[in-house]
Amino acid sequence: MTHFDSDYNNGAHPLVLQHLVDTNSGHSTSYGYDEWSEHARKMIRKLIGCPEAGIEFLVGGTQTNATVIDSMLYPGDGVIAVDTGHIAVHEAGAVEFTGHKVITLTDHDGKMSALELKEYMQRFKADETSEHMVQPGLVYITFPTELGTLYSAHEIESIYDVCNEFDLHLYIDGARLGYGLMSADCDFNMAWLAHHCHAFYIGGTKVGALCGEAVVFPQGNEPRNFFTSIKRHGAMLAKGRLIGAQFEALFTDNLYLRISKHAIDMAQQLRAIFIEAGYRMYNDSPTNQQFVVLPNKILDQLHEHIKYEFWEPLDHEQMLCRFVTSWATTQEDLDALKTALSTIAKA
Amino acid sequence: MTHFDSDYNNGAHPLVLQHLVDTNSGHSTSYGYDEWSEHARKMIRKLIGCPEAGIEFLVGGTQTNATVIDSMLYPGDGVIAVDTGHIAVHEAGAVEFTGHKVITLTDHDGKMSALELKEYMQRFKADETSEHMVQPGLVYITFPTELGTLYSAHEIESIYDVCNEFDLHLYIDGARLGYGLMSADCDFNMAWLAHHCHAFYIGGTKVGALCGEAVVFPQGNEPRNFFTSIKRHGAMLAKGRLIGAQFEALFTDNLYLRISKHAIDMAQQLRAIFIEAGYRMYNDSPTNQQFVVLPNKILDQLHEHIKYEFWEPLDHEQMLCRFVTSWATTQEDLDALKTALSTIAKA
Amino acid sequence: MTHFDSDYNNGAHPLVLQHLVDTNSGHSTSYGYDEWSEHARKMIRKLIGCPEAGIEFLVGGTQTNATVIDSMLYPGDGVIAVDTGHIAVHEAGAVEFTGHKVITLTDHDGKMSALELKEYMQRFKADETSEHMVQPGLVYITFPTELGTLYSAHEIESIYDVCNEFDLHLYIDGARLGYGLMSADCDFNMAWLAHHCHAFYIGGTKVGALCGEAVVFPQGNEPRNFFTSIKRHGAMLAKGRLIGAQFEALFTDNLYLRISKHAIDMAQQLRAIFIEAGYRMYNDSPTNQQFVVLPNKILDQLHEHIKYEFWEPLDHEQMLCRFVTSWATTQEDLDALKTALSTIAKA
Amino acid sequence: MTHFDSDYNNGAHPLVLQHLVDTNSGHSTSYGYDEWSEHARKMIRKLIGCPEAGIEFLVGGTQTNATVIDSMLYPGDGVIAVDTGHIAVHEAGAVEFTGHKVITLTDHDGKMSALELKEYMQRFKADETSEHMVQPGLVYITFPTELGTLYSAHEIESIYDVCNEFDLHLYIDGARLGYGLMSADCDFNMAWLAHHCHAFYIGGTKVGALCGEAVVFPQGNEPRNFFTSIKRHGAMLAKGRLIGAQFEALFTDNLYLRISKHAIDMAQQLRAIFIEAGYRMYNDSPTNQQFVVLPNKILDQLHEHIKYEFWEPLDHEQMLCRFVTSWATTQEDLDALKTALSTIAKA
Repeated sequence: MTHFDSDYNNGAHPLVLQHLVDTNSGHSTSYGYDEWSEHARKMIRKLIGCPEAGIEFLVGGTQTNATVIDSMLYPGDGVIAVDTGHIAVHEAGAVEFTGHKVITLTDHDGKMSALELKEYMQRFKADETSEHMVQPGLVYITFPTELGTLYSAHEIESIYDVCNEFDLHLYIDGARLGYGLMSADCDFNMAWLAHHCHAFYIGGTKVGALCGEAVVFPQGNEPRNFFTSIKRHGAMLAKGRLIGAQFEALFTDNLYLRISKHAIDMAQQLRAIFIEAGYRMYNDSPTNQQFVVLPNKILDQLHEHIKYEFWEPLDHEQMLCRFVTSWATTQEDLDALKTALSTIAKA
Repeated sequence: MTHFDSDYNNGAHPLVLQHLVDTNSGHSTSYGYDEWSEHARKMIRKLIGCPEAGIEFLVGGTQTNATVIDSMLYPGDGVIAVDTGHIAVHEAGAVEFTGHKVITLTDHDGKMSALELKEYMQRFKADETSEHMVQPGLVYITFPTELGTLYSAHEIESIYDVCNEFDLHLYIDGARLGYGLMSADCDFNMAWLAHHCHAFYIGGTKVGALCGEAVVFPQGNEPRNFFTSIKRHGAMLAKGRLIGAQFEALFTDNLYLRISKHAIDMAQQLRAIFIEAGYRMYNDSPTNQQFVVLPNKILDQLHEHIKYEFWEPLDHEQMLCRFVTSWATTQEDLDALKTALSTIAKA
Repeated sequence: MTHFDSDYNNGAHPLVLQHLVDTNSGHSTSYGYDEWSEHARKMIRKLIGCPEAGIEFLVGGTQTNATVIDSMLYPGDGVIAVDTGHIAVHEAGAVEFTGHKVITLTDHDGKMSALELKEYMQRFKADETSEHMVQPGLVYITFPTELGTLYSAHEIESIYDVCNEFDLHLYIDGARLGYGLMSADCDFNMAWLAHHCHAFYIGGTKVGALCGEAVVFPQGNEPRNFFTSIKRHGAMLAKGRLIGAQFEALFTDNLYLRISKHAIDMAQQLRAIFIEAGYRMYNDSPTNQQFVVLPNKILDQLHEHIKYEFWEPLDHEQMLCRFVTSWATTQEDLDALKTALSTIAKA
Repeated sequence: MTHFDSDYNNGAHPLVLQHLVDTNSGHSTSYGYDEWSEHARKMIRKLIGCPEAGIEFLVGGTQTNATVIDSMLYPGDGVIAVDTGHIAVHEAGAVEFTGHKVITLTDHDGKMSALELKEYMQRFKADETSEHMVQPGLVYITFPTELGTLYSAHEIESIYDVCNEFDLHLYIDGARLGYGLMSADCDFNMAWLAHHCHAFYIGGTKVGALCGEAVVFPQGNEPRNFFTSIKRHGAMLAKGRLIGAQFEALFTDNLYLRISKHAIDMAQQLRAIFIEAGYRMYNDSPTNQQFVVLPNKILDQLHEHIKYEFWEPLDHEQMLCRFVTSWATTQEDLDALKTALSTIAKA
């Protein structure tokens, strides 16, 4: 069986795992004060050119989003996201669970429009009844989006400007950050991003780690008592070294970006294979998630050889399907896909 | 100045106030166990033909919605409403504040479509990732809607059937219940309604009381420890008699329905006045809220004589405006409106 | 039956009720922006000598505590109270329900010790693990306390000093504020109090109103977006005039203080009656709540004539009982108590 | 430097780490549905003799407690714990953050008394005002306790009986479960425990894993939609294999119990060393946490060689200190302690 179902269906990248082995003996301070976490923080601060950045390591994405959003907002304030945003759909209501409404704008291939955000805020400010409404306090976007698409530097800058105009925080969910930054379509780097938002996280789980996300407050703007907030959200590891050491490995010799590059290369080949085989790509994703429109009649047959995900039915005859690559994707995997598709074509 | 801005811009209906005066002396048990509250409960149970109904008196609408919804749901489960629903827009996120996502369906002139509700639930059940999503537990509709429109008996029955099929509670917000029931377009009564939902509330604040809403669980299906839940939500009056006595008055000699009928009659006249004056009604509201499309250029002039509410701009030249009647609306008020409109016409 | 069971077992003081009648006709703005609420605010600001004070009218005590505490605290921060504090015992967990731990210190006849508060904070600051603990953000005291006792000006000043030293808000629950201020033992007035705390509320429900509590932020230090917060907590009345008009009446011709004085006079007579009859008073309450130790064997007999409350069993033979006076308590009520006790004595 | 400061200051036990290495390649289903998690569940079900047990792997202790307690309780219900209980002190208010009050009883060397629990519940049921109070729904105890002490089978059975009598869940926090079960003083095994509570968790983080706790609902009594609840609490790992594989290793060849036994043996030797050196043990802990009373004057000197934790000052001259052993504690560590103490003695 060949796996394209997700980028978290595998273990750690071998170099990440090796670093866990290498650092396993020896004692350390707990709760993220260990030497590996401290070193990883320094490496990230240097990379993004933000010597004052507050950086904390949390375990997973939903937890990170809920903890950061709740900590940055006043009680009961709302977060604005697009309707396809992860927090709006697939986090089981974790944000609402801490009392904050997720206000949704219509997505454009997974992305938020700065103009529509501005119009929303203008209408809100002009509305005589806005005192009776949830007060927006933060804008949440994902990079890359849930549909594999990317914002340009100009698009992020425009959203950031609107946020600053209306006193909103801009928080960027980078669960797959590397796959965005290493894409041929991306016109900025991590340092630029750090200077165009109020907080973001560098996803580890989906980019070669066993678990772990690095939350960055670039200007040292960590929310008050953030350590206690992490603890209260159940987001703190006693053995914080587990994540610190993994991020140390990921940021050594550019491993994080190399992993990302590899997955994108594989994804572009995968894309080409589908197109060549005559299938329609749903959008122009330049990242490691590829969305393909498949006829229902081949779904089962393909599943015999290839693991992939049903995204949603498009109509009674076609299914939107997601294929994902990762550090673990190999040329053999692509060959297996090619073979499977040609077998189906012959049948 | 003539007031059509809301149905809560006035005091209590004189008979309601008189009953507060008549019952003021004398001692009573607190927290809703007083004799007047008990009598009002009995009157309502009899009216709806539900001798086992659990009935509690809460203070206001937002509070009632948040308390009932939170008490009927499992932690973190969601409530389905239309996007114009009061809980989705004008309750400052009170439902999310207790941890429950408000899942929105598109409204049709303020109403939910039973078919679209069913399709939503079918998609949810079929979705392989639904475990990662908020679990819907309750459907919230308003009767009349925020746009003054009404569900037919058939429409409510259809929604109720979908709810029962998918194990959802149906809860009906009756902030203006009387104005719906007494409308010429309504094809059922309160007893019928009580048999076609799991909970509803009879709005007092907007129908002649100073404050107070009567929550009804028709089949004795009060949530476990509901008294404590009311207290925890801050929704309990020490002097529960304040609301009990008002509801006793409202349900004596059909006052609740008579108040409602009066306001509807006034509203229909108001509607006719606007139409006759050449203005466009936004929809066919058969209740005490009327939505009129007014050219921007007359807004200020009309405001000099008539108090009404801007609902939302329709375009750069027209404003959707709301005019509301109540027990306190008089024939003189309507005459004043007529005069104001004709003065504007001449100008 | 003679009633000493609570100070909310009655209706409104006749002058309060009369003012509701007098102001009932005529229209007004909603949500507390009406003229009566505005006037009541001005009267209170003048009385306390705080022209900048933010003042809002909420419906009941539990609701007021939960709304104010949640609005003044950062998410997840804790509130310090004594173990007999109302929020710690009889508010059904309303404060915890919004995510804030109630941290309890031992009470001294219902009161908090400034010294023990200081020691608590010193230990907290010195504790190496305090990052893992709830961060205290606010101190809650009641005046008078749940046991009818009073803080001296010196005691409140000491607590206020500790609060300022440790960056804690001081919030005073004045559900029965008048009964404290008018007590012979009280060495300050409302203006002094307003200058020695960050927020307090003037209880209406238990001092002659049908409902309503006036929250005061003396230095204009209303929490950000407090209107929306009130709405989100379900604590807002559409017809805000109901409370505004009552407070206007209460603060006209010193009615609030006159009501309080009357109840205290009645309570001191009641106290004397019990002592003369040979019963032991539990403490030296100088306010309208009196705590009497009664032998179990007379409880039922007394209940035949007098309504009062069991507070808690002291041992197998004695019950601590509470007797409360109010604006509605009469000389006849006291005579009835005297008679009942002498009948029991003869039996 | 020799480390006795905690049992989470180290990496994974080598066999646990090796299993992560061995299972790293190869793909798997996500979110805890992987083969290693499934196998670990089977191993645990067999060990405890509960074939129907629901078992989920969460990341850390605070998270586990908050998720389980919130999921087992009705909204706003309370959890009863002793005042030294971890959820009452060192979890940053995570339980209150989800709306549940932690009701505390006085501890007895870290333990709850079944009799006092029963008396609390009897008083609660008898209290006429209990409707206004938080409704207790669950009892939380730790085994071993925060003070290293153990309940006997009889004591747990007594608490379980009270729970069943009053319709309370019994949930046991086993963050250090192995150190309790392998103690010479323990008169039951894990299977017995599983039959005398409604839920418990087997702590991994403090017993040789890098992270991970296994929550067990012995009778298949998993709370409704528990998967979604875990997700909503941010407690779900995308790569669930990380914990599943570690538990598979811990339950292979009794590793979990062997690790525990080793640490207890070390702890008992450590205890003997202190006693022999003339220091007073604070209590009779038979587990891997030892509490020693040390004079303030030697604290710094000892810290030069030995890392340990200040628990709390006993008076102006003595500090209560905690020393903890783990899988990583060696005979050399004990020798180093002995040497340090004798050096101090000579000084």
